[in-house]
Amino acid sequence: MSDTVAGLLAEIADLGRDPVRGGWSRPVLSDAELGLREWFVAHADKRGLDVHTDRNGVLWAWHAPEGRYDDAVVTGSHLDSVPGGGAYDGPLGVASALVAFDRLAAEGVGGRPRAIAVFPEEEGSRFGVACLGSRLLTGALAPERALGLRDPDGRTLAEVLTAAGGVPEHLGPDPEALGRMGVFVELHVEQGRGLVDLGRPVAIGSSILGHGRWRVRLEGAGNHAGTTVMADRRDPMVAAGALVVAVQRLARAVRGARATVGRLEPTPGGTNVIASRVDLWVDVRHEDDALTLALVEEIRAAAVLAAAEQGCTATLVEESFSTTVDFDADLRDELSVVLPGAPVLATGAGHDAGVLKEHVPSAMLFVRNPTGVSHAPDEAVEDDDAEAGAQALARVLRHLAGPARAVS
Amino acid sequence: MSDTVAGLLAEIADLGRDPVRGGWSRPVLSDAELGLREWFVAHADKRGLDVHTDRNGVLWAWHAPEGRYDDAVVTGSHLDSVPGGGAYDGPLGVASALVAFDRLAAEGVGGRPRAIAVFPEEEGSRFGVACLGSRLLTGALAPERALGLRDPDGRTLAEVLTAAGGVPEHLGPDPEALGRMGVFVELHVEQGRGLVDLGRPVAIGSSILGHGRWRVRLEGAGNHAGTTVMADRRDPMVAAGALVVAVQRLARAVRGARATVGRLEPTPGGTNVIASRVDLWVDVRHEDDALTLALVEEIRAAAVLAAAEQGCTATLVEESFSTTVDFDADLRDELSVVLPGAPVLATGAGHDAGVLKEHVPSAMLFVRNPTGVSHAPDEAVEDDDAEAGAQALARVLRHLAGPARAVS
Repeated sequence: MSDTVAGLLAEIADLGRDPVRGGWSRPVLSDAELGLREWFVAHADKRGLDVHTDRNGVLWAWHAPEGRYDDAVVTGSHLDSVPGGGAYDGPLGVASALVAFDRLAAEGVGGRPRAIAVFPEEEGSRFGVACLGSRLLTGALAPERALGLRDPDGRTLAEVLTAAGGVPEHLGPDPEALGRMGVFVELHVEQGRGLVDLGRPVAIGSSILGHGRWRVRLEGAGNHAGTTVMADRRDPMVAAGALVVAVQRLARAVRGARATVGRLEPTPGGTNVIASRVDLWVDVRHEDDALTLALVEEIRAAAVLAAAEQGCTATLVEESFSTTVDFDADLRDELSVVLPGAPVLATGAGHDAGVLKEHVPSAMLFVRNPTGVSHAPDEAVEDDDAEAGAQALARVLRHLAGPARAVS
Repeated sequence: MSDTVAGLLAEIADLGRDPVRGGWSRPVLSDAELGLREWFVAHADKRGLDVHTDRNGVLWAWHAPEGRYDDAVVTGSHLDSVPGGGAYDGPLGVASALVAFDRLAAEGVGGRPRAIAVFPEEEGSRFGVACLGSRLLTGALAPERALGLRDPDGRTLAEVLTAAGGVPEHLGPDPEALGRMGVFVELHVEQGRGLVDLGRPVAIGSSILGHGRWRVRLEGAGNHAGTTVMADRRDPMVAAGALVVAVQRLARAVRGARATVGRLEPTPGGTNVIASRVDLWVDVRHEDDALTLALVEEIRAAAVLAAAEQGCTATLVEESFSTTVDFDADLRDELSVVLPGAPVLATGAGHDAGVLKEHVPSAMLFVRNPTGVSHAPDEAVEDDDAEAGAQALARVLRHLAGPARAVS
């Protein structure tokens, strides 16, 4: 094969384009995401890899010499996107894995089995829980809870999965699939400007900021926008507005914290109707988990106060929370030897590697993003950097596949 | 006939119930609204009224002695609703008209012809323009503009009308239908607590507050919620939050003003994504049109300021604006003589009577609403008040039908 990363990504550039938001919208189990899976399967087949989908919808493509499916060197990423996201978040890791496998094949690298894994719903943008596939695989999320999650149209994962030909009863912890993994390395576009500032194309990941999502529901009294005098209102939209401002103020007061309201839904949502209810979601992150949770409690108090000032009520519930993850230190040091001079950077974004590292030694590589933008169409990677990333990944995989490898 | 208003409304209580929002959703040309029209036609037929639908979809039921279709005393209202609305907004006026006609028939009242009119899309909740039927009838809205309006599913009025068996080419000003009207009186549930506070069941309308809709677009920089530090953000959601709070503050500072943000849409709207854009709609009303427009200018300035504080930009555009309508003063004074002691109240809500009054002397009656809630399921009318309203309407119609009447 002589595919390049840029060439592979060009093949899928038209899948899931979003004419309204710009960029790409590839929610899990949408036509776009299913089309991307087909594209991956076709490439894996062409390379003679053994492809199958496990009970949680994770796609696996194996190079298994002598029929060995154990202690594998695994790489991969995801193909789903946020709404209106960029072209690289997820697909860069999958395309780079294919190119790295091509190089290992060309070099005749044998040794341990190796596999590419594609994890579903990494973004959590359809059913609300990020890294859904790896959380199910590892048992971090109970299947009954996952099946009840609803998408923005109100359909449960169970319904959507059944409609797509899946079997909801198959979801759940999969020790067999997990046990086949010996080590996991995920390559990902950098979601910030660390490498731009350092002038380097590729970094090694050190840690993932703790992060979570909390839903705030503000309830007031729906009424007519024209006939209800200002003094008689219990308008949850005003409470929501005050809360969004407070979230920024509170997060700014904690060094290193990030807190965001990116999704907000008034009910019924009519222009001439005072809302009866507003739901909004707060994304909170900090490397110190205690500070993350303390900030959430401040936000909860601010919600109650903002609601009370409008005669409304507020509730805040956790939808997900992941503690700060430090990647395997020995593996990271090994990668630093294989990739001399590569900087070691933390990331504020969640990844499947962060979920898997509780069970399998895991590591990450980041590729330079000249805009530093992420989860938006302006996300970018230069072709040369994409190729450098794939070659770095190949070096890492070759090292891990070789007999000299020793990960504690 | 011995129908009561409550009995008539009970017949249609199951049409268009909304299990998701609560209340009733009866958009124009939906199965529910078409069912309500059938119900009205059946009742008009039973009473021997001459029923027809005009070129704009207005339903007419005529009592035309000696075949006279001119200088008529007309009453009526609408049958469509907002999403998740109450049971009375519209249907109360139609049911009361039937009961009032029954009383006039029982009393053998002759004199001028009389008719009940049912206007389509009064709420504008399907195609975005309120009082669509009366605006087309009177020529206040050009038919080519109306036919291009789209519903939330993206279908044009032309498409929906054609699918329902209508003829789009027939839409437009109808001087013949308009010329048959001698006077128009619309009975409506009160959309506030004026009558509750006064302890009275029925009021006479004095005016309709000027009102309009303005769209604010706030634009910033979409990015990743985890990797973008607080200091680097240009988050239009924070600007939107500050603006919603400012809208309330500014409206409270102008006596009699109402300003509402009931609809707000972040783009792309992902939980872990800083929005790149937020659109929100501001509904502003005041009896003094100059103050309405001055308040809108204050809101525009507040939007620019809130946006600038976040490194964002703001634009505000008018989507519609209707000036304050004062009903015919002579007719109003006449009604005060017919209904001694009935308070005279303004309303903050738009009505077909406000559109028709430019062409026909028009008046309104309001019936007490114990909750004061409107455009929501909690809207209410006591059975006794509904009957009192219908009887008041009958007295007004009898007076207007009589030879002694003299409206300038």
